[in-house]
Amino acid sequence: MNSKKKAVVLLSGGLDSTTILAIAKNKNFQTYCLSFNYGQRHVVELNAAKKIAKFFNVTKHLILNINMNEIGGSALTDSYISVPKNRTFKDMEKDIPITYVPSRNLIFLSFALSWAEAIGAFDIFIGVNSIDYSGYPDCRPEFINAFQQMANITTKAGIEGKIIKINTPLINLTKTDIIKTGLKLGVDYNLTFSCYDPDINGNPCNKCDSCILRKKGFESIK
Amino acid sequence: MNSKKKAVVLLSGGLDSTTILAIAKNKNFQTYCLSFNYGQRHVVELNAAKKIAKFFNVTKHLILNINMNEIGGSALTDSYISVPKNRTFKDMEKDIPITYVPSRNLIFLSFALSWAEAIGAFDIFIGVNSIDYSGYPDCRPEFINAFQQMANITTKAGIEGKIIKINTPLINLTKTDIIKTGLKLGVDYNLTFSCYDPDINGNPCNKCDSCILRKKGFESIK
Repeated sequence: MNSKKKAVVLLSGGLDSTTILAIAKNKNFQTYCLSFNYGQRHVVELNAAKKIAKFFNVTKHLILNINMNEIGGSALTDSYISVPKNRTFKDMEKDIPITYVPSRNLIFLSFALSWAEAIGAFDIFIGVNSIDYSGYPDCRPEFINAFQQMANITTKAGIEGKIIKINTPLINLTKTDIIKTGLKLGVDYNLTFSCYDPDINGNPCNKCDSCILRKKGFESIK
Repeated sequence: MNSKKKAVVLLSGGLDSTTILAIAKNKNFQTYCLSFNYGQRHVVELNAAKKIAKFFNVTKHLILNINMNEIGGSALTDSYISVPKNRTFKDMEKDIPITYVPSRNLIFLSFALSWAEAIGAFDIFIGVNSIDYSGYPDCRPEFINAFQQMANITTKAGIEGKIIKINTPLINLTKTDIIKTGLKLGVDYNLTFSCYDPDINGNPCNKCDSCILRKKGFESIK
């Protein structure tokens, strides 16, 4: 019997989530990776997620279909709304942009919690970051803390006095430090995909917030 | 322009959720009903939900596909696990039964919150009840309070100082009082469907917790 502890890792296929997978592996967890086909315009990220899961030889990789197009309200799930381009870092500090998908991290964490309960895991890893980010409210420590409190009320495990932990090892790191952490742990960032608005061949636009933040991270490494 | 306030109503097609829909209509909300095809063995309940949405002439009825079978961990989503039958009310007080779907209400509320954000609603209705119930941790007031607190941290609306309210008008009512409330508001309970484990023709088993609680509610009315 495998006595390693289990963790559910939210894996989008991007730079941040790949780094947390490397961290979870390094902490010797059995890794249960969870990705979502949620109707995102950059669904190509799931190909990256599959390659990364294979690269890290994860215990299980589950891709759930949860179509959020009918809910809408975001440039990432509504093809009629354009992804903003060439925003400055100041812009990112100021607004919550239209790429914000309402309650997306909450939905992702809720499924992660459900799976954690079903397999007997007490650790969930999510690659949120509130330093080099787009200003989404669901990437901030306040949200994660509130979620963790609630998780320990709503679950059978919580009722039984077990503690479910939401691990956010990147929350206070810069993009550069995230990449440095990953490189030390053997991450091949060529496998990762970050763009919100790739062309039909899956090439990154180099102009969305996600491309800009990724570029900034790698530039500071040189 | 319609100046009525909007509400998202979680509608399973059962007795409780139909009653909260009647309550939301009576409070003069524009009702946006949300149902889920989550891989439940009693998917026939969605036919009831459709009829009920029509009966109440709701503004919109959205059925989301979120397959939870791959997550498993419950008799409602894993066909290899049997639904317990003929449990007594004492049994229901004692355990969290295997029909508990890990974090289901959390997932449902998270999608409801996402839709509320997208359409500009600040009220969500959910038919949870912690009196005549199966002992699920996510039906208790503690969970709802924690969720509401978190909702006002994770959303753009919350950040902007607007209050999102999770309405649970049934939470402290007995099944009989729920039915009495609905009858006063014109609910036709013949349209509703409560069984967890119907036969292939969609007939209720009359032995699962849900059937037993429903029966208890109607018996006390006579």
